[in-house]
Amino acid sequence: MSLECICLQSRSSRCVFEPVRVARHQPGEHDVTIDVKFCGVCHSDVHVAKNDFLETKFPVVPGHEIAGVVAAVGARVTKFRVGDHVGVGFFVDSCLECAPCKRGDEHFCSATFTPTFNGKPAHGRAGAGVTKGGYSTAMVVDERFAIALPKALPLERAGPLLCAGVTMYAPLVKWRVGPGSRVGINGLGGLGTIGVKLAKALGAHVTVITRSARKERQARAAGADAIVLSSDAASIKAAARSLDLVVDTVSVRHDLKVSALAPGGLIDLLAVDGVWCYCGLILDMLDVQPVRLLQHQLSLTATQIGGIALTQRCVDFCAKHAILPEVEVVEATPAQLSAVYEKLDGGNDAGVRYVLDIGNTLNASVFEQPRARAPKLVSGWRVGAQIALILNRAALARIEEFVLEHTAAIAGGVGAALFAAVAAFVIPPLASRIRG
Amino acid sequence: MSLECICLQSRSSRCVFEPVRVARHQPGEHDVTIDVKFCGVCHSDVHVAKNDFLETKFPVVPGHEIAGVVAAVGARVTKFRVGDHVGVGFFVDSCLECAPCKRGDEHFCSATFTPTFNGKPAHGRAGAGVTKGGYSTAMVVDERFAIALPKALPLERAGPLLCAGVTMYAPLVKWRVGPGSRVGINGLGGLGTIGVKLAKALGAHVTVITRSARKERQARAAGADAIVLSSDAASIKAAARSLDLVVDTVSVRHDLKVSALAPGGLIDLLAVDGVWCYCGLILDMLDVQPVRLLQHQLSLTATQIGGIALTQRCVDFCAKHAILPEVEVVEATPAQLSAVYEKLDGGNDAGVRYVLDIGNTLNASVFEQPRARAPKLVSGWRVGAQIALILNRAALARIEEFVLEHTAAIAGGVGAALFAAVAAFVIPPLASRIRG
Ligand SMILES: NC(=O)c1ccc[n+]([C@@H]2O[C@H](COP(=O)([O-])OP(=O)(O)OC[C@H]3O[C@@H](n4cnc5c(N)ncnc54)[C@H](OP(=O)(O)O)[C@@H]3O)[C@@H](O)[C@H]2O)c1
Ligand SMILES: NC(=O)c1ccc[n+]([C@@H]2O[C@H](COP(=O)([O-])OP(=O)(O)OC[C@H]3O[C@@H](n4cnc5c(N)ncnc54)[C@H](OP(=O)(O)O)[C@@H]3O)[C@@H](O)[C@H]2O)c1
Ligand SMILES: [Zn+2]
Ligand SMILES: [Zn+2]
Ligand SMILES: [Zn+2]
Ligand SMILES: [Zn+2]
Repeated sequence: MSLECICLQSRSSRCVFEPVRVARHQPGEHDVTIDVKFCGVCHSDVHVAKNDFLETKFPVVPGHEIAGVVAAVGARVTKFRVGDHVGVGFFVDSCLECAPCKRGDEHFCSATFTPTFNGKPAHGRAGAGVTKGGYSTAMVVDERFAIALPKALPLERAGPLLCAGVTMYAPLVKWRVGPGSRVGINGLGGLGTIGVKLAKALGAHVTVITRSARKERQARAAGADAIVLSSDAASIKAAARSLDLVVDTVSVRHDLKVSALAPGGLIDLLAVDGVWCYCGLILDMLDVQPVRLLQHQLSLTATQIGGIALTQRCVDFCAKHAILPEVEVVEATPAQLSAVYEKLDGGNDAGVRYVLDIGNTLNASVFEQPRARAPKLVSGWRVGAQIALILNRAALARIEEFVLEHTAAIAGGVGAALFAAVAAFVIPPLASRIRG
Repeated sequence: MSLECICLQSRSSRCVFEPVRVARHQPGEHDVTIDVKFCGVCHSDVHVAKNDFLETKFPVVPGHEIAGVVAAVGARVTKFRVGDHVGVGFFVDSCLECAPCKRGDEHFCSATFTPTFNGKPAHGRAGAGVTKGGYSTAMVVDERFAIALPKALPLERAGPLLCAGVTMYAPLVKWRVGPGSRVGINGLGGLGTIGVKLAKALGAHVTVITRSARKERQARAAGADAIVLSSDAASIKAAARSLDLVVDTVSVRHDLKVSALAPGGLIDLLAVDGVWCYCGLILDMLDVQPVRLLQHQLSLTATQIGGIALTQRCVDFCAKHAILPEVEVVEATPAQLSAVYEKLDGGNDAGVRYVLDIGNTLNASVFEQPRARAPKLVSGWRVGAQIALILNRAALARIEEFVLEHTAAIAGGVGAALFAAVAAFVIPPLASRIRG
């Protein structure tokens, strides 16, 4: 018996999706076969589909916020029965034997973990070939990488807990957020909104940091106690030193200004001993001066999804406290995917999690639809620019070594001042003249 | 009654010390008058005396690892009696009323704390004019900023606990070091050596990270379980991902390589969830890519001395567990200070804490000695170069904004590649030709 299903795949970084019939691998005795009902569209899907990290294996079938119903179970499956609600998050396999795997950090497996899509199977539980994700009518997953979804959770809102939810829950738990904690959430999108709700449920005072004054109502609805406008220096100043932990979900490059030469940045929001925790999968490069961290004993850190046990704990916590993501359910069609990718790439102005209605709309009829238009991806061209930045930095590092090793103080100072003056006053006018 | 004492002061960043007679302020009813016996020479003294941060008010009398005997107490002093052993650390006043002061973080006073030397009194408990430190025969300090030194601690080894000791103890406590913790100490100098002993006493497995293979014996004597040679890529590689917390005491610029374009740096020593904690008062500028932190959920942080209560706790812990710094007691003379400053600035190859024997050697006879020679400060000229770097970075930030806003991907890539090539292959030969 071959397990044929319908997937939505993109063959290039232009993110034009098309339906395709694919055979899933044969279920083994530990596997559950899942009738996929819904799949959230995480911004990480967009990064990978756009090939932001230059490691996407095309064609790609994204999707890692999967919620469905168990259609069949292998002989040795113990956690699930046919008809149960079941979810799959960011990964579907790991070695299960190393120390991180054993303590529940499968995503830090010393060998390698296998992402739900665009991953290379390595431990025998994820089929062969590049893994294909949840923009798909069916999945086959080892039960140890499947999450039990309590029926109290509406299925169309459960998927985003498996990536967005646990990604926010993990740092809140790690940094011991509870009553009295002052938490900031930077960026009110898919991750940010559920982050606000989780932090509130844990008892924290929550501040939403957003570019967009229009998101205030939405932030308050999610439970925010305060708002900071990241585009407004006065707003940052008014909230300076008021936060113990900021979880930063912004999906594009942004500089916190952690260096003495750039005061007045978002980093100023942190109180003594405050922690700035990045989530965004972005190629930012920050100038960091340790003395700037030292001044208030700040920490700069980052977080990555969560292990299976923690994901289950997050789901159970959400079921218990009725914490649900704000979602907009859309048809699982190429045309809708183009629209959703455009919205996320454009900054997710609605601030919701878009969820594909796989169960009701991904079927044979999709093959009849016209080819989808390519989404307009405003930040797509930036990859090249980011590579340019990295090369600039490599050059800078050499220049710095040179300055430190060979230049007398005054010559160095004068040279740099000239360099700064050229950069500030000559290049921009010159460039605008060239551009006409 | 005027409280005249003899101090050793330097009138310029050349660090040439000379004796001078100074009147301390009149003791108030909360003050203890201290007959100074010993004072440790912390590398921070050297940074300030060299004017590394461009904020030194000359003439300067450094010294903030002070151990002495109570000579007199004010009417309302309760903690001390004449004859008690007493210490003074990095600061001598703060507002005592703000939230940080109330919770024992006087060094994060919302108003301002007053450093023991080169500080501006602000709250009425530190006299008038710029504060003068412990290279001095006497001090007058409010008892709330004085530390009780148990007589079990030899007085000549107690002073360094008040800065070096608590500076290491604070991050070990904050990051919950105990049995099972894997701690690295980068740099085996004044801070590093006491850090090794404290981490061992708390039950950790301790790795010393040092430039110098010659320090191995000394590291083992302090209790180190393992050694990593920071100058040797193979040594770093062999210990990759083996440490939970590194406390970094290196006193000069050094790059950990926390960016994707620079693999193989010291940051690789950290295990999943590892923390890199800076102590050095250095103007480093690091390229940090948050995705590089995300990969193993690393944190980059820094620490600053400790509050009065924690300092007392550290001293009591050391007395209880017989933890003492490795010291070399030297005469408190201008000539000896020149030699000590030279050694610290040169990298503290002996790895000990030099301690001035104030009680036995700082007296009228010092005025008879010939003027001291200026120490040869190898890293002195680097201040200018560091300013140059900062200006370079400011220029770079503008260039980066420009690249991100205006350049198409390919043009950016090509431009940067050319830039890198010029920096790598043209500037160094050109420069060496210019230099002859
Ligand atoms: N570390 C992990 O394990 C993990 C897991 C999942 C996702 N992620 C990453 O986390 C990031 C967020 O994912 P998501 O699904 O929440 O994305 P999202 O729904 O698109 O939300 C991103 C938010 O970033 C802010 N933003 C967007 N463009 C911006 C711009 N030009 N300037 C400033 N702010 C901007 C917006 O918030 P405002 O409008 O409120 O400013 C937006 O709502 C992505 O990079 C994703 O790949 C990481
Ligand atoms: N944050 C705070 O509150 C606080 C408190 C006190 C001191 N400090 C600062 O902490 C730093 C250390 O103070 P300290 O008194 O322990 O200084 P120290 O006794 O001079 O020791 C510094 C150590 O740094 C290493 N080092 C020196 N030069 C180096 C070079 N060129 N390359 C690599 N490593 C080098 C050496 O260790 P190896 O030979 O083993 O490599 C040396 O023993 C100073 O910057 C000081 O100002 C900060
Ligand atoms: Zn995701
Ligand atoms: Zn593993
Ligand atoms: Zn010190
Ligand atoms: Zn205060």
